[in-house]
Amino acid sequence: MNALPDAMLIRLQRLLPADRVLTDPADCLAYAYDNSRRLTLPQAVVFALTAEEISQILRLCNEFNVPVTPRGRGTGTAGGSLPEQGGIALSLERMDRVITVDPANRAIVVEPGVLNQTVQDSAKPHGFFWPPDPTSAPFCSIGGNLATGAGGPHAVKYGTTRDHVLGLKAVTGKGDIIRTGCYTTKGVVGYDLTRLLVGSEGTLAVITEATLKLTPLPEKTGGITAHYRDIESCARAIAAVMAQPHIPSALELLDAASLQLIRGRQPGLLPDDTQAMLMIEIDGSAHELAATAAAILQALQNDGLINAQEASDTARLWAARKALSPLLRDIAPKKINEDVVVPVSRLPELLSGLRRISSRHQIANANFGHAGNGNIHVNLLVNPDDPQEMLRAEACLDEIFSLVLQLHGTLSGEHGVGSEKRAFVDREIDPVTLQLMRDIKKTFDPQLILNPGKLFPWGK
Amino acid sequence: MNALPDAMLIRLQRLLPADRVLTDPADCLAYAYDNSRRLTLPQAVVFALTAEEISQILRLCNEFNVPVTPRGRGTGTAGGSLPEQGGIALSLERMDRVITVDPANRAIVVEPGVLNQTVQDSAKPHGFFWPPDPTSAPFCSIGGNLATGAGGPHAVKYGTTRDHVLGLKAVTGKGDIIRTGCYTTKGVVGYDLTRLLVGSEGTLAVITEATLKLTPLPEKTGGITAHYRDIESCARAIAAVMAQPHIPSALELLDAASLQLIRGRQPGLLPDDTQAMLMIEIDGSAHELAATAAAILQALQNDGLINAQEASDTARLWAARKALSPLLRDIAPKKINEDVVVPVSRLPELLSGLRRISSRHQIANANFGHAGNGNIHVNLLVNPDDPQEMLRAEACLDEIFSLVLQLHGTLSGEHGVGSEKRAFVDREIDPVTLQLMRDIKKTFDPQLILNPGKLFPWGK
Repeated sequence: MNALPDAMLIRLQRLLPADRVLTDPADCLAYAYDNSRRLTLPQAVVFALTAEEISQILRLCNEFNVPVTPRGRGTGTAGGSLPEQGGIALSLERMDRVITVDPANRAIVVEPGVLNQTVQDSAKPHGFFWPPDPTSAPFCSIGGNLATGAGGPHAVKYGTTRDHVLGLKAVTGKGDIIRTGCYTTKGVVGYDLTRLLVGSEGTLAVITEATLKLTPLPEKTGGITAHYRDIESCARAIAAVMAQPHIPSALELLDAASLQLIRGRQPGLLPDDTQAMLMIEIDGSAHELAATAAAILQALQNDGLINAQEASDTARLWAARKALSPLLRDIAPKKINEDVVVPVSRLPELLSGLRRISSRHQIANANFGHAGNGNIHVNLLVNPDDPQEMLRAEACLDEIFSLVLQLHGTLSGEHGVGSEKRAFVDREIDPVTLQLMRDIKKTFDPQLILNPGKLFPWGK
Repeated sequence: MNALPDAMLIRLQRLLPADRVLTDPADCLAYAYDNSRRLTLPQAVVFALTAEEISQILRLCNEFNVPVTPRGRGTGTAGGSLPEQGGIALSLERMDRVITVDPANRAIVVEPGVLNQTVQDSAKPHGFFWPPDPTSAPFCSIGGNLATGAGGPHAVKYGTTRDHVLGLKAVTGKGDIIRTGCYTTKGVVGYDLTRLLVGSEGTLAVITEATLKLTPLPEKTGGITAHYRDIESCARAIAAVMAQPHIPSALELLDAASLQLIRGRQPGLLPDDTQAMLMIEIDGSAHELAATAAAILQALQNDGLINAQEASDTARLWAARKALSPLLRDIAPKKINEDVVVPVSRLPELLSGLRRISSRHQIANANFGHAGNGNIHVNLLVNPDDPQEMLRAEACLDEIFSLVLQLHGTLSGEHGVGSEKRAFVDREIDPVTLQLMRDIKKTFDPQLILNPGKLFPWGK
């Protein structure tokens, strides 16, 4: 890969007005990092407004063999939007138009820079919402949601991003403008390129427009909290809830370390003897709420349960849950944050394994997350300035990943691979399938200029 | 493409026992057609039992440049499983094991030859079902459902095949064994090859194992029927039903010609003045049923409504609806059967357009289908021995497709492209996107031996 040559910069500046090509390192800094907290400076930040402009930019990058990394709002945690090899950071934040809201067909068409929250705000007056709801919803972009296949707490009932997209417009690494999917809720003409792009982390194409499928807002929502004496009984309760037919709209786990963090900030919110807790949201009509609450309260019963009850005001608890990630950052700014998934029936084994492994390696950790999907955010609270601890953390993580795969799980449920998990992908995906993915990458981006080096180990 | 050479046949016979390689044309005949009613004879029918065998078979086909067309039970209507260029028909019907039923994780793992009905029967005792339900469910295979992205009446509430698959094992055209997706309900590691294979009609890889996601059976189901004076008011009612939040579990339309056919077979079942009819299924708890029925009955009201009511026993009606396709075959054995889709809000325009266009071209037609998704089965009832009529039908179809695309629709909602719609695909998908699809095909199947020529126009 080349550094950005002057000849290309001149061509870029001819293509776009001055306020859309930044090269001053001070200006570029804001586009050099994401929530992985790594920092890799691009040589230029370019703001595109149309697919046609993006096509021209990508053709220039191909001509000069310069890497280009698309980015939304940089809220990803896996490094997917880091301009790791320098070159161009292609910001989509100014492509922020809501093109159509079409409640009759339950669809909304947006540009990639539109915020998740804006989609929700546009849909709500018509009685709809868009189910993916990462914690960053108020400030993350739809383009980023699509690129990572974002999830969030409601995925347990409603699925993730890939379940809520009808079609896309995008520019391939080559610079070709393509259209995928359709505007209707059914369609089988041609290959499903829509879902191939969802979760591809900007390595195949730059999404320039998305037709999203909207879902009717539930009539009501309710809450249930359940406190357990130990993590094992809590894990068994999760599996029991998910084995019965009344699906909660969110099922979040907080382990002992997470609870301790919340207690430190909000004394009195949580009883002292709770070692694991579930925060459950249910939704539907009033009658459905009652039936679902009864079924879930029944499934929560086991010998480790301290108490389980319907909670009329869960806002404070949800705020506490949402504050966990930032809280962990305060304690361990360089925490290692994973989002592994196992089949829900294997959660007891995962959670007791996490405790065993981290205790053996003497690594503090806090586990919480979307337990209804078996999706646990494992946080190793390490001090990066302690080389001994970092070595122990590395060995600990290695064992955690082995356990997850042994339990028939996956290494990422919603954060993606980016650069952070790249080295581990070949433990989950076999070499033949991985080679096929690389070959697909080359059909979209033969010169490998688009977000190069991300997503898989690329070897030499 | 080569005819099957003796040297390859000898190698095949060395690989597989005699009862799994058929070459007698009389034996091959049963594998020469599907429900498109075209017939193209393969030179051999091969029955595989494992992914490893399929890999060896495909490597042989590559070595000898012989086409190979995978097939399930041959119930597709678009010609996707026709061995159009001769060579090998690769039957998956003997790979019919249910590998695991895992109610705790809402998953079932099956081989491709397992029937849709067998999946339902395996899931039901645990309180689950698998939502895709094409009319052929009792005798179509899961492999075929996956290859075509099958839908069915319940897709309006539950989505289609692509929404209910967690992962696949498959053999690419090259002969490589790959694994896609994961066993969990969330997962974003690597590209989404699962959904790339779903709907690819056996042109990329042969699916050898599927992990399907199960859905809890609804507590109860109910029915509503609505009779209209004319198709336009009926179409407006469909749009109104789909614009409100209570989604029916099926919403089927029968137009005047379809109703007339049913009257011919089942006198007294339908009133004489009904010119268009909706058959609606709703599901959920008793309370949900009541709320949904009330909301839908409200949405059905307009000035063309004759009457709408809850129907306690809808079995006879559903049987009549299911019998429609075979009935049409009796009248017009070579009927042209399309399954176009438009956004539901555009259904009034589609349905009045269909009447206008077919009347201008003097082509009898009957329209029915999954109107809640905007998915209409358009049947042109033609006599293939009348060349004048066939010419008029061709012109009529051409105009219908133009109308569908103009209304922002798609040419196939669930039947697929196969060979039947191949010539029309480039009217829906632009040349650049189509070329990308061809390039993806080549990464899976560089010698183009797998179901060659299907799905797109391939040019010379």
